[in-house]
Parts: sequence; C-alpha cells; structure tokens
Amino acid sequence: MKTLTVDLGDRSYPIYIGQGLLSQNLLAQHIRGQQVMVVSNETVAPLYMDKVLSQLEGFEVGQVILPDGEIYKTTEVLNQVYDGLLSGRFDRKTTLIALGGGVVGDMTGFAAACYQRGVDFIQIPTTLLAQVDSSVGGKTGVNHPKGKNMIGAFYQPQCVLCDTDTLNTLEDRQLSAGLAEVIKYGIIRDREFFDWLVAHAADLVGRDPEALSYAIERSCQNKADVVVADEREAGVRALLNLGHTFGHAIETAEDYRGLLHGEAVAVGMCLAAQMSEDMGWIDSKATQEVEQACKALQLPTAIPQGLKAEDLIEHMQVDKKVDKGRVRLILLKAVGDALMTGDYPDSALSALLACHCQA
Amino acid sequence: MKTLTVDLGDRSYPIYIGQGLLSQNLLAQHIRGQQVMVVSNETVAPLYMDKVLSQLEGFEVGQVILPDGEIYKTTEVLNQVYDGLLSGRFDRKTTLIALGGGVVGDMTGFAAACYQRGVDFIQIPTTLLAQVDSSVGGKTGVNHPKGKNMIGAFYQPQCVLCDTDTLNTLEDRQLSAGLAEVIKYGIIRDREFFDWLVAHAADLVGRDPEALSYAIERSCQNKADVVVADEREAGVRALLNLGHTFGHAIETAEDYRGLLHGEAVAVGMCLAAQMSEDMGWIDSKATQEVEQACKALQLPTAIPQGLKAEDLIEHMQVDKKVDKGRVRLILLKAVGDALMTGDYPDSALSALLACHCQA
Repeated sequence: MKTLTVDLGDRSYPIYIGQGLLSQNLLAQHIRGQQVMVVSNETVAPLYMDKVLSQLEGFEVGQVILPDGEIYKTTEVLNQVYDGLLSGRFDRKTTLIALGGGVVGDMTGFAAACYQRGVDFIQIPTTLLAQVDSSVGGKTGVNHPKGKNMIGAFYQPQCVLCDTDTLNTLEDRQLSAGLAEVIKYGIIRDREFFDWLVAHAADLVGRDPEALSYAIERSCQNKADVVVADEREAGVRALLNLGHTFGHAIETAEDYRGLLHGEAVAVGMCLAAQMSEDMGWIDSKATQEVEQACKALQLPTAIPQGLKAEDLIEHMQVDKKVDKGRVRLILLKAVGDALMTGDYPDSALSALLACHCQA
Repeated sequence: MKTLTVDLGDRSYPIYIGQGLLSQNLLAQHIRGQQVMVVSNETVAPLYMDKVLSQLEGFEVGQVILPDGEIYKTTEVLNQVYDGLLSGRFDRKTTLIALGGGVVGDMTGFAAACYQRGVDFIQIPTTLLAQVDSSVGGKTGVNHPKGKNMIGAFYQPQCVLCDTDTLNTLEDRQLSAGLAEVIKYGIIRDREFFDWLVAHAADLVGRDPEALSYAIERSCQNKADVVVADEREAGVRALLNLGHTFGHAIETAEDYRGLLHGEAVAVGMCLAAQMSEDMGWIDSKATQEVEQACKALQLPTAIPQGLKAEDLIEHMQVDKKVDKGRVRLILLKAVGDALMTGDYPDSALSALLACHCQA
C-alpha cells in the first residue's frame, strides 16, 4: 500500500492506494462518531457494499443507494441523501462514506458539507476517474440544468481509499475515461509522466496492475501538489480544467447522455491543443502527440456528430472560469506546460468549433 | 454610526449600525467584482430595493425576489436564486446582497456559499431579529421538512449593514420577535444587559431609537464575542441556542405557520427556565424574571394551544445538538449564566411538556 498526503494544515488527509484495501480495516481510525452513512449507487453497491459494511462493525450504519449516472447529479437526488440522514436521525458527528465513482463522490461530499452545516466524510472511489481526480482535492457539488458543477463547495474528506481491485469490475469504456484525466496531468504539468503514459498505453488499457497502480499514484501526487498550492482555485488549480470547458459544453449539449465525462475531456484536450496550435503557441507535432495519446488510450478525439458550434459556444459561457463576461480557457504552451488565459481572439474559438463540429 | 468587528482572521468583517446607513455609500468598498445580485422578498423589496440599487451605480446588478415567510426557506425556493444567477451569467466574482430578514439572509448566505463553490455576500438585515442575531456569525441554510436549518453552511459575509431606519416599517409583532433574541443574550451571558432591558422594555417596545440602537449594538457585540470564540459551534456558541430546541419543535409542529421564530424562542426560553427550576438549578424567582421580561417585551410565554407533548418531543429529536441519540439542552444556572447539557432525566423533560401543553 502507498500512502500520499494532501497537506492542508488542519484539513490534511491521507490517500491510500493499493490492492485489497477494502479488506484492510483502514476506515475506523478516520471515523469520529458512532454513526456512518454509506452512499453508493445501484451499480456499485451490489459489488462492494458488503465489503465496506464488514469494516464498520460496531458502528450504527445506514445506506443510501442512488441511481447511477451523471443525469442524476442534481439537487433533487441530493435530497435523497438528506432524507435518509434525517429519517435515520444521523447526528452532527456522523461520517458519510462515498462508495462509487465521481458522481457519488461529488454528491456525497456536498451532502457532507451541508448536512447540519458540515459533517465528516470519506471517499472510496471505485472508478479510475474518481481515484485519480475527483476524490482528491475537495471539490464537491451537483449540476444545474444550466451548467455542470455550478452548485457545490470546497470540502475536504477525512481520507481517500483507492482499492485498485475495484477497477477489475470497471467496463473498458469507463477505464479509458479515467485514463483521460490521467494523461491530463502529463499534458498540463508533467511531460515525463506523459511520455511514460504513451509508452505504457497498451499496458494501461490491458489493465496491467503495476502500470495502473503507478498511474494512479503519480496522478494523485500531481493532484495533491496542485491542491496544496491552491486549494480554492484562485490560480494554478484552474489548469486542472484542461479540456473541461469544452468537455462540459459537450456533456451539457448531450444532456449528459452521450460521452462520459472523461471522454468529453479527452475531446476537449484535443480541441485545446488544436486551438493552441491555431494561435501559433505549439506546433502540429504537439497537437498530434495529444491526439495520438488519447487514441492509444481508446479515447475519442472528435466532437460527437450532431452538435452545433453555436450551441457549444453558448454552453461554454456558463463556466466557473468566466471573468468579466469572458471565458478563460486552458491552453498549451507545450505538452507538459499549460496556462489559463482569456486573451485569445473570439474568431479562433468560433473557427475551431465550426471546423470540428460535424453537424 | 457604530462599527463593530467580527474578528475571524482572514474572514473578519465589520458590522455597521446606525440610522440612514442605506444612503451612506458603504457597500461599494466591500464588492470585489462587477456583478451584484440583490436577493430580497416581496415585502421588503418595495420598501428598500431602490435605496440599495442607488448605492450600486456602475455595477451590473440583478434582482431575485423571493416569497416572504419561513415556509419558503426550502431547497426548492433556493433554486430560484441559482436560476437567477445562472440565467444572468453571474460569475465567480459576483457579490450577493441579502436585503431582508432572517429567512432572506440565511438563504442568500447559503446560495453564496454554494454558487460556483462560493462567492462573496453582504448582509443588509431589515428586521430586528436579523440585525441582532441571524445576520452576524455566518450561519446560513434552509429548512428540511424533517427539521429546521438542517441543510446549510458556516459562511461569513463581507460586511453586515444594520440601518436602524428599516425598523420603522417593521410590524410590532416582528419587533417583539426580534427582542426575544436580544433578551436571550442577557439570559445566557450578560446579566447587566438583562437588567437594562427589563428597565427599558417600554422604550424598546415603543421604538425609542436610542434604546433600540443600544440594544442592537450590545447584542451584536455579544454575538461577535461568541462567534469569535467558537465559529463552528464546537462549544460555547451552542449557548446561543437557548430556547431554540423547544422553539424549533414548536415551529415545526406548526408547519412554520404559527408563532414567529422569535416568539417560539421566547416560549422556549421560558420552558428552559422552568425546566432548570424543576431540576433545582435556579429558583422560581429566576424563572419569573425570564417570563416577566418576555411579557414586558410583548412576547408569548406559553406553548400554543393544540400542540401535543409527544409531538414536540419527537421534533426535538431532530436537532443539531443531538449527540449519541441524546438531545442536549441549553439550561440555566442563573439568569445570565447558561450551559449545555445532555445530563437531565427524561422524566423532567416529558413532565415539563406534559404540564405546559394545552392540547
């Protein structure tokens, strides 16, 4: 088992990474009170709920099982968690446990931030995407019909437990979606890691345990470094949004029923690279490196058919990085070196999307 | 104008108290970005919105007008604020302004805590209750059908602006409801203030400006002292809940359509005094002092007709002060000296409510 630490003063917490961690009695030390509410979804609960419950003997334990999917990441479904907590009379020392992917983690963390004005929570991410990205760093929230992750809180967990065995039950498409967020770290700030990922793409897609473990560790370390430098995204943390403004617009345009989040981010990263090239910041070889890496990880690189450029631009206007009416984008100065800027010609953005939409 | 400071390090903020402050250009210095959303309700907006807007020239200003009343302090109505913000494309540097009483303040503060994971907000309380209590200290949130203020956040404003002129439009009943939270400070921690309030009860009910101003200042100072000592209510801040566990149970039992919050708190403080007397902690003279002070401030002191003891006890179980299944109560060792305890016989509580319910 590997232990990393997210060093945030009195809000510091460990990330445990390894095989079989769900059987290793790591939870109890991070639970303050007597009551625990495990929040999961219909897909993950049948696979891992029993393992988690067996670690919680002696506690008063409740369960809330949510429907599975990004379309359920809403304030209405969030109320199911509050209903379960209040019906079961869970008190202010309750610990919530998020058992599932990014949606379960984001919603459970937000419920923990708001229930009785804040209770403890623990992340047990069971998808690669959640293990390498969403479970670390304290971003929690739900979507609004007008925009993704618009309602939420920065709220840090007590610990993150990444049992790599849970990836065995993950569909190939979900695994690749997670790898999009992995390669993202390489593209924005870790060229060495990018090269390693390209060299080991087949191992990763083939689920080689050692390769996956290393990819998770290095991703979490990158994430932890950035979060420690800028917990509330006043600056450098925004770079972690590479591909996300494009990606969120695609997800919103598809009503969260098309590409998976990681897939949309992969397309978004390719668009960001292309736009950086169009503006003369990187050469075409760099753009191709990004695209080929995505392809090697079995990720889409093109905007899905049927989406319109003007709709995507409209959706992009609703983004947390908007400043004085202008969307700031994460673009590339090199593979391994990203920056955030609002200083680009509108024509570059509209030409890019017009060219890449296949409506 | 009097300025108090709530000293919370990098979250410190001023409370301005005085006549005519809405015309004194105090807001702009506390607004970081270009966009401002004023949240108010149907009762207050016609009275004071124009004054506030005239202080905001040069900013891009939106308005959300909520229905008036505690029954609207829900997640559903909260969504109206998010809808307004997203429809108007308000960005992460937006400042929300709460213009109204406790409900508007609590909901606007919670919306600010959650919108894009946190934007600035300013409190302009227009009721006495909000000026002396709810606008100071960063407690924000909404009610859940199963319990009051169960969903929320600790989130501090940029400033609190108490224009005592706004009290001129307050109904007598609302003024008295606010005085309940004023006398609360005297009962829990400031005997000298209690005596002053009893001596000046007629002036206060008669709206003498100097008496009201002094009462607001001293209340805010008491509140600020407690909040600075214990921002997140790990200890002493809980004492500010004197009368509130009883009061919330009454409000919930009446579906927020009966007593006003301050009135319910007054009844709750009398019950807490009586229970303290029943347990031998204070003498009957102290209980009478509390009751007579409430009566002098035109507040109710008895549980409304028709409520049942067993229902109140049921509602009391859903309280943020529950610990290991036990409701902790704020009781009195003397007038001016309260404590929180779960160490009381259940029979004392059930006998008290059985005796005081007029079902």
